[in-house]
Amino acid sequence: MEKLTIVKVGGKIVEEADSLQQLLQDFTHIKGHKVLVHGGGRSATTIASRLGIESKMVDGRRITDTAMLQVVTMVYGGLVNKQIVAGLQALGINAMGLTGADLNYMRSEKRPVKEVDYGYVGDVKEVDAHILADLIRKNIVPVLAPLTHDKAGNMLNTNADTIAGEAAKALSKYFDVKLMYCFEKKGVLKDGKDEDSVIATLTPALFEEYVQSGIIQGGMIPKLENAFDALKAGVKQVVITRADLIDKESGTMVMI
Amino acid sequence: MEKLTIVKVGGKIVEEADSLQQLLQDFTHIKGHKVLVHGGGRSATTIASRLGIESKMVDGRRITDTAMLQVVTMVYGGLVNKQIVAGLQALGINAMGLTGADLNYMRSEKRPVKEVDYGYVGDVKEVDAHILADLIRKNIVPVLAPLTHDKAGNMLNTNADTIAGEAAKALSKYFDVKLMYCFEKKGVLKDGKDEDSVIATLTPALFEEYVQSGIIQGGMIPKLENAFDALKAGVKQVVITRADLIDKESGTMVMI
Repeated sequence: MEKLTIVKVGGKIVEEADSLQQLLQDFTHIKGHKVLVHGGGRSATTIASRLGIESKMVDGRRITDTAMLQVVTMVYGGLVNKQIVAGLQALGINAMGLTGADLNYMRSEKRPVKEVDYGYVGDVKEVDAHILADLIRKNIVPVLAPLTHDKAGNMLNTNADTIAGEAAKALSKYFDVKLMYCFEKKGVLKDGKDEDSVIATLTPALFEEYVQSGIIQGGMIPKLENAFDALKAGVKQVVITRADLIDKESGTMVMI
Repeated sequence: MEKLTIVKVGGKIVEEADSLQQLLQDFTHIKGHKVLVHGGGRSATTIASRLGIESKMVDGRRITDTAMLQVVTMVYGGLVNKQIVAGLQALGINAMGLTGADLNYMRSEKRPVKEVDYGYVGDVKEVDAHILADLIRKNIVPVLAPLTHDKAGNMLNTNADTIAGEAAKALSKYFDVKLMYCFEKKGVLKDGKDEDSVIATLTPALFEEYVQSGIIQGGMIPKLENAFDALKAGVKQVVITRADLIDKESGTMVMI
């Protein structure tokens, strides 16, 4: 099978002109087929605030009420997505922006209300990547916004890490997928204060050990659980690294 | 060649939930391949105003400064486009939203400053519809937002009538294209006060005559000039009608 690299980058990098430009350039250096998945939370918060809409968060997760759903649909699907698409086109990459509604490639259901009502947040239920795969084979580069739809006419807000993981799993039917999660460190660190203490490879056993001993904690735990899930579902390789290193062989390689 | 119907609808219809729902239902009744082109000016004005950005117009045309470019990119490319795409998906139509940057299907250049500086407005220079045509043949329905790009990294604001006309011309290489422009009347009227005085067919000679006598005036003149241009460039049929009549044989048929 042909190789496909899926890169997920968080908000901060794609939301500032300089770091976005650098990212897009590094991204073009990745050989072969590729997909870019982006966030945009900071821009959403800024635009919402300018519109007089308060951003409500519970444990770092956004509560998406009706007004906020409009904002994220505009900001993720329009502002951030089209800046990236236009930027890639300028670099000679034939990019195409998509939400889950476009081509009906990712259907979700509104998250059931339990202790917390997250509002219009979609849990992914079905991914149909066959048209996406056709386009990728024609050297088109999908740029995926963190939005899905419920196939009943509603857009839903979905975490970009989840979009990347679910797209990677679905596309692993058609390609040898390498999934790269970018964050602010060079990789998963043994010592949070030492940027060079990157854990080179991480197996489920090592992960367990590091969680027990408190070396791996907080938001990194669900990120790595997603990575192991993706590998179990057929993704060939998961790498956690810093955005400016996506075209280098570095970071933490997660393996099963 | 297979038939393709391109429907252009203005802002008002797609910006209110009830009329949008009716439009999408009527649109699904159109047989065969189809494309929807939408505006969104009223929403852009509303969001801009809520963001404290003033909408500047000259002769009914928007001046797109940096702040307004952000707004139209969000509103046309995100909010309005994704509401339509999600709405069509709910009706079983495999829609896909696009700006000119996506798939690089429509490249434009920033309009040169003459008497008026329109700001970030793009005049269309190049349309590459071959990937669009492939997708349409697979029963995908493109939903085109009134945005283009300059292939140098910038999005540009482009009139939805122009997008519809240019897309129709480019797609007429691959399909027998019927282009439908929707507006608030049943067609081009002989008597503006009589909704039933629709001019059934309009040739260049008749057009000339009606313009001379003042029966056709204002914004209808460039609309009809665009229609004749499209016909000269290979579009098979241009119809001007009301949005709720798109699945009926009515309106004004423009012919050469």
